[in-house]
Amino acid sequence: MTDQHTILWVSAHPEPQSLTHQLRSDGIAHLQAQGHRVMESDLYAMDWNPVVRAADANIPQDQRFQVAADVRQAYLDHRLPDDIRAEHAKIRDADALIVQFPLWWYGMPAIMKGWFDRLFISGFAFGKDADTGMRLRYEQGPFVGKRGLVLTTLGDRPASIGPRGKSGEITELLHDILHGTFAYTGMSALPPWALPSADFIHEYNDAWHPLRAKLDRLFSETPIAYRPQFTGQYTEEWELVPGIAPGETGLSIHIAE
Amino acid sequence: MTDQHTILWVSAHPEPQSLTHQLRSDGIAHLQAQGHRVMESDLYAMDWNPVVRAADANIPQDQRFQVAADVRQAYLDHRLPDDIRAEHAKIRDADALIVQFPLWWYGMPAIMKGWFDRLFISGFAFGKDADTGMRLRYEQGPFVGKRGLVLTTLGDRPASIGPRGKSGEITELLHDILHGTFAYTGMSALPPWALPSADFIHEYNDAWHPLRAKLDRLFSETPIAYRPQFTGQYTEEWELVPGIAPGETGLSIHIAE
Repeated sequence: MTDQHTILWVSAHPEPQSLTHQLRSDGIAHLQAQGHRVMESDLYAMDWNPVVRAADANIPQDQRFQVAADVRQAYLDHRLPDDIRAEHAKIRDADALIVQFPLWWYGMPAIMKGWFDRLFISGFAFGKDADTGMRLRYEQGPFVGKRGLVLTTLGDRPASIGPRGKSGEITELLHDILHGTFAYTGMSALPPWALPSADFIHEYNDAWHPLRAKLDRLFSETPIAYRPQFTGQYTEEWELVPGIAPGETGLSIHIAE
Repeated sequence: MTDQHTILWVSAHPEPQSLTHQLRSDGIAHLQAQGHRVMESDLYAMDWNPVVRAADANIPQDQRFQVAADVRQAYLDHRLPDDIRAEHAKIRDADALIVQFPLWWYGMPAIMKGWFDRLFISGFAFGKDADTGMRLRYEQGPFVGKRGLVLTTLGDRPASIGPRGKSGEITELLHDILHGTFAYTGMSALPPWALPSADFIHEYNDAWHPLRAKLDRLFSETPIAYRPQFTGQYTEEWELVPGIAPGETGLSIHIAE
């Protein structure tokens, strides 16, 4: 008997018959069969607009667009466009955010990047409390309590995304999403699930069974132990204090051993 | 007396009066004054479409879109859309590619990511030689001889992108672009230029003078020493051989000391 949760599954692949889509529909069906509620954002099917423009902030055409400040104000004034508000409502409801995409140039497809660019607005996904001045990010972020999971497929072979792989170790390669977006907004970032050599999957279950097992741990797997920002591990200048991992550098120093 | 070169300056900011645009126009004028030829791709002004779709490959509507293979074939058959072909011509001509953007969620804005997604096609930017089977990437890539430079602005403070900074050391944070895109296609990736605390620049020259000095080194600065793939430093499984940086992990092991 598992607890029932609400999950938002966001995916980005242009071909409905792709492996990405098959894994998506099987994954969603599997989560639903466990009693979870699953919301979907299939960005290609939605024809999602990924480009931040002044129209997002609803400012007069001749006014200089100050991106972060203006979209923040539009959010606070409830003046955001409908497509953004609809996605915001889903994110608010979600206990877990699943983000699924083919790895293109070692990152998200543009349509997926623009989902974050347009939605993760100051006031909604991070910011500063107007009354207390409290900085709303990392362990103080608005999305504390939510889990974030990346599912990705790539052409490179397995060892290439391992600890010494040429393509870059996958957790470090996805640092912008896992740490800079999920953890930054308060989410617990789960270890990503990556399917290498995806063009050479001849037996579908070789992809699906590992994914199914991963989904079964969605609410039980231990998240990546990114260090909290406001408990003395970082200086006021946002640097790891000298006493922790002394002399070490690299993205992984931000993960507690 | 400097040698004269051809440069492609690609930028992505929605506001023509932004700091990004001012630095861009001053940077371009400065390079031109030195005798260089500068081509421009101002992605917002061009209303660049960043989303890879089957239309890029010009395949029949009912045909399953196999992204990498189909756009490769469209490239080889000269069937790509005009917007892609126009950018390809610029990239072919360029001795240096300058990519300028505000850092959003620790990466490129979607419109910029989609410039790479749609343009960096197998056959054009990487691939395999049909006759010899030679793998066209890294030091064998089609863009050997070109230089790649990232210019970015961000809100976080300077130490946050330093070696032990909370936001992530900037060269590792941009590994997808610098290594996975520039170096992968054969370009020499220059150390990136980043302007932190960009919202607190009150004296324009505090931004412009360092950028100008950086641009003056565009063809003389030593590139990041990413390791070549095919000279014995990596195994056939794309892993760094055990004898190099023994026991070490992290993205920076792919840079020669």
